[in-house]
Amino acid sequence: MNYRLTIQYDGTEFHGWQMQGGLRTVQGELTRVLSLLDGREVLVQGAGRTDAGVHAAGQVASVHLEREFEPSKLRGAINGNLARDARVIEAASVPDDFHARFSARGKTYLYRIFNAPFMSPFWSRYAHHEARTLSLEKMQRAAACFPGSHDWTAFSAAQSDVKTRVRTVKGLEVTQEWSERGLGRIINISASADGFLRYMVRSIAGTLLAAGRGELDEAAIAHMIASGERHRQAATAPTCGLTLMRVHYD
Amino acid sequence: MNYRLTIQYDGTEFHGWQMQGGLRTVQGELTRVLSLLDGREVLVQGAGRTDAGVHAAGQVASVHLEREFEPSKLRGAINGNLARDARVIEAASVPDDFHARFSARGKTYLYRIFNAPFMSPFWSRYAHHEARTLSLEKMQRAAACFPGSHDWTAFSAAQSDVKTRVRTVKGLEVTQEWSERGLGRIINISASADGFLRYMVRSIAGTLLAAGRGELDEAAIAHMIASGERHRQAATAPTCGLTLMRVHYD
Repeated sequence: MNYRLTIQYDGTEFHGWQMQGGLRTVQGELTRVLSLLDGREVLVQGAGRTDAGVHAAGQVASVHLEREFEPSKLRGAINGNLARDARVIEAASVPDDFHARFSARGKTYLYRIFNAPFMSPFWSRYAHHEARTLSLEKMQRAAACFPGSHDWTAFSAAQSDVKTRVRTVKGLEVTQEWSERGLGRIINISASADGFLRYMVRSIAGTLLAAGRGELDEAAIAHMIASGERHRQAATAPTCGLTLMRVHYD
Repeated sequence: MNYRLTIQYDGTEFHGWQMQGGLRTVQGELTRVLSLLDGREVLVQGAGRTDAGVHAAGQVASVHLEREFEPSKLRGAINGNLARDARVIEAASVPDDFHARFSARGKTYLYRIFNAPFMSPFWSRYAHHEARTLSLEKMQRAAACFPGSHDWTAFSAAQSDVKTRVRTVKGLEVTQEWSERGLGRIINISASADGFLRYMVRSIAGTLLAAGRGELDEAAIAHMIASGERHRQAATAPTCGLTLMRVHYD
């Protein structure tokens, strides 16, 4: 039987998604628990490999099990064996050819910035802190440069081992909200694409942060996208602000 | 000089507000830092003593210092000496007779319930988890019993050492919102009063939880308030769901 799992995790205390030797990773924890439940070594496939410190509200994984489980019972059995920083929020039986990664048609990430003189204790795990006041309007104008199909070399890790660096950014939206709990302004960057290169969302977020501080304008950003050359002001934003919100399937 | 500090803290890793021997408390941390800055032992007065595990988005403290500080510099100097789970978000010079506790006219607390089959990793520190579906409407009808001046003996700690247990509840509102991040429903209980007895907000929250599960109706709640006798279904709700939102002054 093939199962699809929708998973949330607070990435703060994980070394990312992907299994790595003895380190605590989300894939490693799920593999441990599912192997226990199925009575043999299983392979858990994730839709995307989030880096250490990155969170997920809707990561998706697929796994073939020999035993048959009622999906909500499977969900309960997994959750009963996980620490509280990871939870399966949905389990479903799916056709045999469903694969969390190869079946995915796109992803949506959220990058969250807490923009106030001091970081709120309630957001320090889940948002990047920027003390300088950001211009929402400048960030929105910068964001409008991104949608479309491009080679995103300037916005990815140097050693990225992929066939093509062309991806289609479908949406890049910058909005703000007031955090009553944090007593400060939160700026949300929502990015959707058919796929993302490694560090791509955090590179875009770093570029929009520079735009919001007035250090980069649209011409400089358009040049980065066209030339594939990273501007020195466009740093890769830290992992804590990033959350994988949703994986899209047909 | 007398200063008013507005403070946020994630209560998870504090043994509450009040200084207690060698335990890590918010008052203890602030006293340590402010004594260092003023070069002598100072006394930090808080508006309310939150219990271990209770959070604050707007706790208020007052402190007399011999040295004179520009308020935003004072804020920066304190924050530079605190761990990231506590932050002074505002500092102000105030008249000599301002006292965080005695000058307070009331407080507003928020009790947050995450109502979904499984607890979201993003809310486990900041909300109480209830797996059974709660009736918002029943909770709202129950909440309508509370506003007014009463003796709140049935809703306080047995040994509470106070002259009178009469307090005026000014507002008790139950609302719900969808947590995009947690993919679940959050029920917020907002409680305002001229003052609260120890455990009072958590006792009210426990009573509303029982009402939402259909275990207590308005007649039973009205009887509790009138008789001063706690109903056995009305447990004191856990600390993690509680946040001191605001202290009210003239």
